[in-house]
Amino acid sequence: MMKGEEMKEIKIGMLGFGTVGTGVVRVLRENEREITAKAGVKLTLKSVLVRDAKKERPYMEGLHLTENVDEILNDEEIDIVIELLGGIHPAREYMLVAMEKGKNVVTANKDVVAQFGKDMFEAMEKYGVDFHFEASVGGGIPIVMPLKQCLTANRVTEIMGIINGTTNYMLSQMAENGSDYDSVLKEAQAKGYAEANPAADVEGLDAARKIAILASIAFNTRIRFEDVSVEGITKVTPEDIEYAKALGYVVKLLAIGRDCGEAGVDVRVHPVFLPKAHPLASVNDVYNAIFVRGNAIGEAMFYGRGAGSLPTASAVVADVIDIARDMQLDTFGRLHCTCYAHKSLCPVEETKASYYVRLLVDDEPGVLAAIATAFGNHKVSLKSVIQTRRYKERAEIVAVTHVVKHRKMQEAAADLEKLAVVSEIRSIIRVENPQEDGAC
Amino acid sequence: MMKGEEMKEIKIGMLGFGTVGTGVVRVLRENEREITAKAGVKLTLKSVLVRDAKKERPYMEGLHLTENVDEILNDEEIDIVIELLGGIHPAREYMLVAMEKGKNVVTANKDVVAQFGKDMFEAMEKYGVDFHFEASVGGGIPIVMPLKQCLTANRVTEIMGIINGTTNYMLSQMAENGSDYDSVLKEAQAKGYAEANPAADVEGLDAARKIAILASIAFNTRIRFEDVSVEGITKVTPEDIEYAKALGYVVKLLAIGRDCGEAGVDVRVHPVFLPKAHPLASVNDVYNAIFVRGNAIGEAMFYGRGAGSLPTASAVVADVIDIARDMQLDTFGRLHCTCYAHKSLCPVEETKASYYVRLLVDDEPGVLAAIATAFGNHKVSLKSVIQTRRYKERAEIVAVTHVVKHRKMQEAAADLEKLAVVSEIRSIIRVENPQEDGAC
Ligand SMILES: NC(=O)c1ccc[n+]([C@@H]2O[C@H](COP(=O)([O-])OP(=O)(O)OC[C@H]3O[C@@H](n4cnc5c(N)ncnc54)[C@H](OP(=O)(O)O)[C@@H]3O)[C@@H](O)[C@H]2O)c1
Ligand SMILES: NC(=O)c1ccc[n+]([C@@H]2O[C@H](COP(=O)([O-])OP(=O)(O)OC[C@H]3O[C@@H](n4cnc5c(N)ncnc54)[C@H](OP(=O)(O)O)[C@@H]3O)[C@@H](O)[C@H]2O)c1
Repeated sequence: MMKGEEMKEIKIGMLGFGTVGTGVVRVLRENEREITAKAGVKLTLKSVLVRDAKKERPYMEGLHLTENVDEILNDEEIDIVIELLGGIHPAREYMLVAMEKGKNVVTANKDVVAQFGKDMFEAMEKYGVDFHFEASVGGGIPIVMPLKQCLTANRVTEIMGIINGTTNYMLSQMAENGSDYDSVLKEAQAKGYAEANPAADVEGLDAARKIAILASIAFNTRIRFEDVSVEGITKVTPEDIEYAKALGYVVKLLAIGRDCGEAGVDVRVHPVFLPKAHPLASVNDVYNAIFVRGNAIGEAMFYGRGAGSLPTASAVVADVIDIARDMQLDTFGRLHCTCYAHKSLCPVEETKASYYVRLLVDDEPGVLAAIATAFGNHKVSLKSVIQTRRYKERAEIVAVTHVVKHRKMQEAAADLEKLAVVSEIRSIIRVENPQEDGAC
Repeated sequence: MMKGEEMKEIKIGMLGFGTVGTGVVRVLRENEREITAKAGVKLTLKSVLVRDAKKERPYMEGLHLTENVDEILNDEEIDIVIELLGGIHPAREYMLVAMEKGKNVVTANKDVVAQFGKDMFEAMEKYGVDFHFEASVGGGIPIVMPLKQCLTANRVTEIMGIINGTTNYMLSQMAENGSDYDSVLKEAQAKGYAEANPAADVEGLDAARKIAILASIAFNTRIRFEDVSVEGITKVTPEDIEYAKALGYVVKLLAIGRDCGEAGVDVRVHPVFLPKAHPLASVNDVYNAIFVRGNAIGEAMFYGRGAGSLPTASAVVADVIDIARDMQLDTFGRLHCTCYAHKSLCPVEETKASYYVRLLVDDEPGVLAAIATAFGNHKVSLKSVIQTRRYKERAEIVAVTHVVKHRKMQEAAADLEKLAVVSEIRSIIRVENPQEDGAC
């Protein structure tokens, strides 16, 4: 018997009525019948916070808009607050107050969760409420809940994702049309896939926030945004993408988390050469996917739309339904923070990978030997070296290393740069080869 | 505050100690630390039912094996029963008795869930226990729980899966090496991917059971095994696979469920030509994947190992942990059967698709016209017709139709067969084109 059987309606307050907020209103309205059946109770959106309540907006009909957050935070009828403002302030403060007032919180805010997750979880435990954030990573893709509830029998050793749609769209376009970074960025901006200031996406910061959240759950230890080593896609050129193709790879911006046991947890975001046959390699355009390796399940992948009004609302409303079920059973915190382990971080210098290195060199005898020696001096052994295009007295050399420590690769690069015959190191990009030993 | 805070240990009984049972023992043992942390309580495997308790088995050390099921069903200390016997009898009866005795049940048994799900859910409600079956579909892949808990905000309109590893391995091998059905079947048997009697896999029955389970959850209506229209891969030839490639497709055995609204729910299993760019098209070998379309989330896909000892155990043990959490919160049935809608079925004759048709015909003028007329008489319009190989006086013709009702295609095929110039209809395979109108 359900304890809250007499419960007939649950009232919701929403902070923000932009892209995702509008999606939430549409989903609650258009799927009302299904949602009521699944939630076991009617869900009513009582008030919505905006900056300008008088502005005309689509789907505002029949809604109470307010510019005063206290109308929501102090409303005792409201049991669930959905936060969709974005940014740290005042989103963080509003959520903390909501929890303090005994309200359950659902958010899509990766910034707050990645940076102030600890505060949020502590408030949740202290005030005995639920705090759900499925939409903060991977948009509509169910990943937070599956990690917390479906992969519980595993020791997860790796989580790897294409979790930024903007950069994946850009890299897909570069691969398809051979266009360069600048023109593809303009195109993405024109289509609304990239913002006027694209830094958070192209510099890898957005992906870093999301992998911090995922790695925390996967490895049961707290990883914050600051703990992630980040490199964006701004230096990736059409030539790199072409070489990748020729070598059997695609270039992707990957967010990677690895639990290397004694060596610590390794969390980073950077472009990689990914083998064409890897399940993540065929994830193109604005699609996202998260690949998980666990010691029981083996490999699993979750694929879908990582952003967008309705997909993101799908995750937000699922969290709301989950809380509604909890409220009727009078159970909260079924999925409490699982950061019980306190694992150390693996410094990026100590992480291992194989590297693709593209150099512009003098086109003269002995160059290959000089380069091989510079690598060899730092015990970086080479899997392959090819000399390719020629430009007047210059030639391009592409080397792929065996698995080495990042520090060794950096040292070798510093030495290469000093060589008289090397005019420029054009690219250094990690190569992912899951078969290879030494990922950790 | 948790209600069962004093709870320190939960005892489990397991029925069956074969492939999956062994995996469960290994996972419980090797990941004990993680599992105890996640479950919030120690999980102890108290007794295991086998046919022969004296037989030497790997991982049996320290376990109590019994040949007497009552030692488990009548043991009041045991709160969770894991059923891993396989088959309908006595698995179904044992599970019903276990629930009657107030025990929660976890199973990997697709046969029982697909055919007697109703009895299981009724027993679950009647006796106030949990009944979990994540492992019955897609092995380790989390799909039952995500459908029940993460896609709740959606009206799901389509669920499509590669959910039989044996046939996917066979089709992948045929595509890769050009081998024929018989030799690939022998190879699959040699590798242990196919059973001595492969009927359940190659005839599509295994996939039919699984899609019955998935469609029931996705569409909130009860679909039984008998409701699924089934066709296996036994008639797929290397030539079909070659034509598919040339036309931009791959051949896959798909299990498909569609909610066509007024027209009913359409559930079937058969080979299809799938566009190369479809996310399911790159799911190869023994991997499985389930693709879901919902009106909020858009497209999502869940990928992983559809079978195997440890992957399947991953799903079984996750279900056990979920129940352990429920027990401590004293809440059961959070995820009760959601078959509240009573939707009608769409008869397979009324379903729509585009078709690939391969014919052996006389190599003489007027043949194409005769064939086009036979199609046209049943309002089956053709997208393309190509005459290809020649064999002495015979030629092969490959036609691809626009979207038509299955009934119309069958009528056209009956007429084609009667044509003097047609010596044989070699293949009729549906073509999936998600962009095309008329899926329903
Ligand atoms: N867009 C996506 O596809 C997506 C996907 C995943 C996660 N998310 C996350 O979802 C959240 C919302 O994103 P969004 O794209 O919906 O943002 P948005 O379109 O910019 O909408 C933000 C909304 O919040 C309101 N707002 C902002 N600050 C406010 C303040 N101080 N007081 C009152 N109202 C305020 C705005 O009001 P006005 O309308 O009056 O300006 C607007 O309605 C962000 O955390 C984002 O990272 C978004
Ligand atoms: N194998 C997979 O990859 C996989 C994947 C997903 C789902 N499943 C499902 O999981 C279930 C188990 O599969 P499995 O591969 O582990 O089967 P299995 O290897 O054949 O093991 C069956 C076990 O059950 C025992 N058993 C069978 N009938 C019994 C009876 N009447 N009394 C006592 N013991 C009995 C057998 O005992 P003895 O050892 O003494 O003969 C054996 O230990 C099936 O429902 C299957 O469909 C399997």
